[in-house]
Amino acid sequence: MLLVIALGGNAFAREGARVGSPEEQWDVVRLAASDVADMIEEGFDVVVTHGNGPQAGLLAERVGDYLSLDMIDAATEGWMGYLIANALTNEFIRRGIRRNPVVVISRSIVNKNDQAFQNPTKYIGPIYDREAADKLSKERGWVFKWDSRGGFRRVVPSPEPVGIMELDLVKLLLREGYVLIAMGGGGIPIISNGDVKGVDAVIDKDLASQVLANAINADYLLILTDVDYVYINYRRSSQARLMEVTVNELEKYYNDGQFPPGSMGPKVLAAIRFIRNGGRAAYIGPLGRAKDIIRGRIGTKVMPGITLI
Amino acid sequence: MLLVIALGGNAFAREGARVGSPEEQWDVVRLAASDVADMIEEGFDVVVTHGNGPQAGLLAERVGDYLSLDMIDAATEGWMGYLIANALTNEFIRRGIRRNPVVVISRSIVNKNDQAFQNPTKYIGPIYDREAADKLSKERGWVFKWDSRGGFRRVVPSPEPVGIMELDLVKLLLREGYVLIAMGGGGIPIISNGDVKGVDAVIDKDLASQVLANAINADYLLILTDVDYVYINYRRSSQARLMEVTVNELEKYYNDGQFPPGSMGPKVLAAIRFIRNGGRAAYIGPLGRAKDIIRGRIGTKVMPGITLI
Repeated sequence: MLLVIALGGNAFAREGARVGSPEEQWDVVRLAASDVADMIEEGFDVVVTHGNGPQAGLLAERVGDYLSLDMIDAATEGWMGYLIANALTNEFIRRGIRRNPVVVISRSIVNKNDQAFQNPTKYIGPIYDREAADKLSKERGWVFKWDSRGGFRRVVPSPEPVGIMELDLVKLLLREGYVLIAMGGGGIPIISNGDVKGVDAVIDKDLASQVLANAINADYLLILTDVDYVYINYRRSSQARLMEVTVNELEKYYNDGQFPPGSMGPKVLAAIRFIRNGGRAAYIGPLGRAKDIIRGRIGTKVMPGITLI
Repeated sequence: MLLVIALGGNAFAREGARVGSPEEQWDVVRLAASDVADMIEEGFDVVVTHGNGPQAGLLAERVGDYLSLDMIDAATEGWMGYLIANALTNEFIRRGIRRNPVVVISRSIVNKNDQAFQNPTKYIGPIYDREAADKLSKERGWVFKWDSRGGFRRVVPSPEPVGIMELDLVKLLLREGYVLIAMGGGGIPIISNGDVKGVDAVIDKDLASQVLANAINADYLLILTDVDYVYINYRRSSQARLMEVTVNELEKYYNDGQFPPGSMGPKVLAAIRFIRNGGRAAYIGPLGRAKDIIRGRIGTKVMPGITLI
């Protein structure tokens, strides 16, 4: 039974999507490692994916003059992949699990004609005033849009992931029994067109996780984040938590605009696509509670739309 | 025939060990990829290693408040590994070489009793005045020493690499025909003592490359850098280039203090150790000229000390 666990990038950060100190990073990653080890003890083969929003934002802000976004993605795959690998090694030693983690530096293939390249929408990095934004726009060719929090923020394309360059490698390592850490930050965005070329873009990590999960015929997709359940009518008097939901129901809610684009939207969409492409169940719930989520004690379970008579 | 190619971190940077623009980084890495492809066409199986001095220095300077040195090493393994992998993919497509590159995020094991931890000697990052150095020393626990260029610079331990956590993985990927990119920046420094723990240190990439090369029984070690030959009596009237040298001769020169610790010293030491541990030949020469080096047209060749009668 193959399980893909997607760890939220925000889960690795402090309040306000800020990266924590080295010690704080290790604390969070230990929690994630415990979830992964729990799932292995439950009998699953596991592939771990992770986001990189706060981490990529930090690097873009501080070293964006030297590293384009594809390079930044690659750097966070190394950095965060190492954190997860080291924490897993220790958790496996502690529990006597005879498995080894491996970080797969993953390149996600995107379509060069993806509409996202014409219409960058994904905010990254800090908020600037008009003058600073104009300066950066001239110096580095960055595109800025107004952010409702009061200022200008860089926007980058967020194209759809359509494949993964390292798929054969991932399959080999799975056959050999490794616990994989792959598709970090959604994978490094690559256009493949005779040759391969990195692009200044950010791929949604939940959608990339789903593409990987279906490509390796995973049975389950578990998205760990900072919420207990997926809600409909969120923060209204009619708010309701979704405990178990069929893919058909969830898709209706999704099309009704129940889930905001920047946060729960892509998670729900990833769950829908995963089931539509053959997955057995997708779960969305809180980091640190994987076992409880799988057992139905917390979190939202998305299932194929089976008609019961 | 197995060949380890060690790429200098400085070779990836501009004059003065500064990281170049994204475009400049791609230009250099294309040169390295051409060397690697040449060697594959010559019939070698290839493992690529690389340094990260300028890149790690940049990250330590800009994001050292968030990333400890082990994390920085991991980030540069992702960043530079991606650059090399993408350039190799393109070079292989262009030449019709049916091989795939893979980046191995590598953890190097060091000994917790290594004397280097008591006596940090490796300079990293920029030069500070006394006040700034004192402040950073208090805030982050960094150790500073006087740098002869006029100011204080952070010094970190540079312990000896004694093993590699990912050795089984490396052997598997070699058997499967992948072109490996491993031990970037000398590998992430890890103390293994029941559990594993990253340490604030920097491992010499040439020594780490040698440890890997011997561990996988490589036949040849090729160290590519920015010199044409190894010299004795460098910059003196008696200066002489070494074209072919036995390990015994070279060790004598090394023990005479012919090679400066920060630059040629570790390369020569890596070559000596590689031969002493069973390597057939080690080469030190300029990036972009791998084929000429192997054919004896440029560069220094180090051989086992065979007595000719």
